[in-house]
Amino acid sequence: MTHNIAVLDGDGIGPEVMAETIRVLDAVQQKFGFSLHYTHADVGGIAIDNHGEALPASTLQVCETSEAILFGSVGGPKWEDLPPEQQPERAALLPLRKHFDLFCNLRPAKVFKALVGACPLRPDIVGNGFDVLVVRELTSGIYFGQPKGREGSGPDERAWDTKVYTRAEIERIARMAFAAAQLRRKKVTSVDKANVLTCMVFWREVVKEVAGEFPDVELNHIYIDNATMQLVKDPHQFDVMLCGNMFGDIISDEAAMLTGSMGMLASASLNSSRFGLYEPAGGSAPDIAGQGVANPIAQILSGAMMLKYSLGYEQAATAIEEAVAAILAKEIMTQDIVTPGVTPVSTSVMGDAIVREI
Amino acid sequence: MTHNIAVLDGDGIGPEVMAETIRVLDAVQQKFGFSLHYTHADVGGIAIDNHGEALPASTLQVCETSEAILFGSVGGPKWEDLPPEQQPERAALLPLRKHFDLFCNLRPAKVFKALVGACPLRPDIVGNGFDVLVVRELTSGIYFGQPKGREGSGPDERAWDTKVYTRAEIERIARMAFAAAQLRRKKVTSVDKANVLTCMVFWREVVKEVAGEFPDVELNHIYIDNATMQLVKDPHQFDVMLCGNMFGDIISDEAAMLTGSMGMLASASLNSSRFGLYEPAGGSAPDIAGQGVANPIAQILSGAMMLKYSLGYEQAATAIEEAVAAILAKEIMTQDIVTPGVTPVSTSVMGDAIVREI
Ligand SMILES: CC(C)[C@H](C(=O)O)[C@@H](O)C(=O)O
Ligand SMILES: CC(C)[C@H](C(=O)O)[C@@H](O)C(=O)O
Repeated sequence: MTHNIAVLDGDGIGPEVMAETIRVLDAVQQKFGFSLHYTHADVGGIAIDNHGEALPASTLQVCETSEAILFGSVGGPKWEDLPPEQQPERAALLPLRKHFDLFCNLRPAKVFKALVGACPLRPDIVGNGFDVLVVRELTSGIYFGQPKGREGSGPDERAWDTKVYTRAEIERIARMAFAAAQLRRKKVTSVDKANVLTCMVFWREVVKEVAGEFPDVELNHIYIDNATMQLVKDPHQFDVMLCGNMFGDIISDEAAMLTGSMGMLASASLNSSRFGLYEPAGGSAPDIAGQGVANPIAQILSGAMMLKYSLGYEQAATAIEEAVAAILAKEIMTQDIVTPGVTPVSTSVMGDAIVREI
Repeated sequence: MTHNIAVLDGDGIGPEVMAETIRVLDAVQQKFGFSLHYTHADVGGIAIDNHGEALPASTLQVCETSEAILFGSVGGPKWEDLPPEQQPERAALLPLRKHFDLFCNLRPAKVFKALVGACPLRPDIVGNGFDVLVVRELTSGIYFGQPKGREGSGPDERAWDTKVYTRAEIERIARMAFAAAQLRRKKVTSVDKANVLTCMVFWREVVKEVAGEFPDVELNHIYIDNATMQLVKDPHQFDVMLCGNMFGDIISDEAAMLTGSMGMLASASLNSSRFGLYEPAGGSAPDIAGQGVANPIAQILSGAMMLKYSLGYEQAATAIEEAVAAILAKEIMTQDIVTPGVTPVSTSVMGDAIVREI
């Protein structure tokens, strides 16, 4: 069976790490007997340069005729002086999320065994590593809520945004979190600020109702301020963290950094028909772009998530994950994750090693 | 000269740590020749029990005839089932902040030399410790913004809050941050989400304008998600972090936990006439209340901040801070901060030691 995949390499290290990802995906295709048909399209800064906008209609068209989007990363110093709403990241990602109704963002923050030493936390806190899954609502909340605006002048000039959630929006993301927890350690921690925000009182109420549908999953609630503390104090206490759009942005980035392996973390953004956008958690890293030293693993693991969530090839996804674990155990590491005494390898050498391992 | 101080002990460990604070304040009074007149009043859970509300009019009255409020901590399991807007913390703190226009919240997150080992970060990241001052706007933003509401039913039922800032509100808190930075390492990092929120685009714009009044201070901008990461990766990069109300809540708690000394951190909430509320950063710790083991230092240092900011007794404040550093160096430590091999002391033994040191 052949699947159309939209490949949006983007800027910075995007194209480099994407090239290795395609090679790895090609390797599993042969082994597991399916075929992927890739269509590359511009997104982000390069799309601004070539087409005058971060998400051209032609790119959206490619995505619409695909079963999934493999997304690289976007942005860089070249486009930094554009007004906020034209910045490559925002102008590419937000409309894509909204257009395809990608309400469910899965951001695993997992410490790889071979990389426990890279965690910024004290060894006695990290132990053998932790494994948290942040489930973030991605198409509502304060990012998209109306009204937004600015008016007046002088000292009273004011600007505002609206944080809003509907029951339907909370229910569907909560169900995703509980379902994910059922396949893990059966614990959901919902992050809110119900002690102050009306919208979050509602959030907590609806999440409690949804919990009734999943009697085998334990539910806890935590305030966002306390969540940022508890993650540092003891990340092991969390299994699935269920968050709204902005709190999920904050928590997933903190959790990712706590793993010490930003170059290793994948993410999936799904809608309700298995369509999804798959992208690494790190950014476009313009400082190392073009040098062939970037870590391709986050992009490769994003490809594995795509096989699992959008195309249903669980075994092929697992094969990639195991290959990654195996080469790390052999101390094949790029500069960002290299442990003392190990010589870092290039992006393509790491890609080679993973392909060989499959 | 005699100063009226409102003492709101509150719940949990509040009364215990407050008792030691009063003894320490008494000791500096004698030494530096001023006098404090304390009026105790109920706040939080105990006020709900005794007066039916978390912030009774009689308590507000006491605060109004004082030059500063020494605040303990509020809340506990007994009041946990009240509706969110009646919870002791929210129902006491939010109206107090608003009533006295306490727009400027100073939250130092500083690692004490003797306690570097307690930091949850890896020793090579912590080094000799870090010293960050979070300057948080405390009377506006999404906590107080109107409208807030809930309406409808079924799947479309919705609830919302409004994040809003005026130019005047941003200017005054930004000026506090820059002024604080002038007395420190001359660097302000403003935390926002200007890539997505209209209100934060405005925030960034006004902060840049205010920076023009302080040419000797360096200004940087960082997105809230990246800020939570950078704090973990390298807290030394920050001097003063300028935040709105909610981002300041999040960042100050994360930074506090990263110091490893939650029981050591003081805070001040000021208005523009030197009136202030002074409270420890930790909570009411109901689990250890009444056992005489709580760490009184955060409350004692809050008292020192009161002397400095509301009463203008800088030397007396410094004397307290030095006494605290001195007893820590002598390894007089309560259980929460005890280092391996040291026997923890009680709340009152620690209070005694600080008094003797002054
Ligand atoms: C670029 C920005 C709009 C985006 C977000 O905040 O959602 C990014 O930080 C992310 O988390 O994917
Ligand atoms: C209790 C709560 C309303 C409060 C806040 O969020 O402001 C607390 O977390 C704090 O930071 O002082």
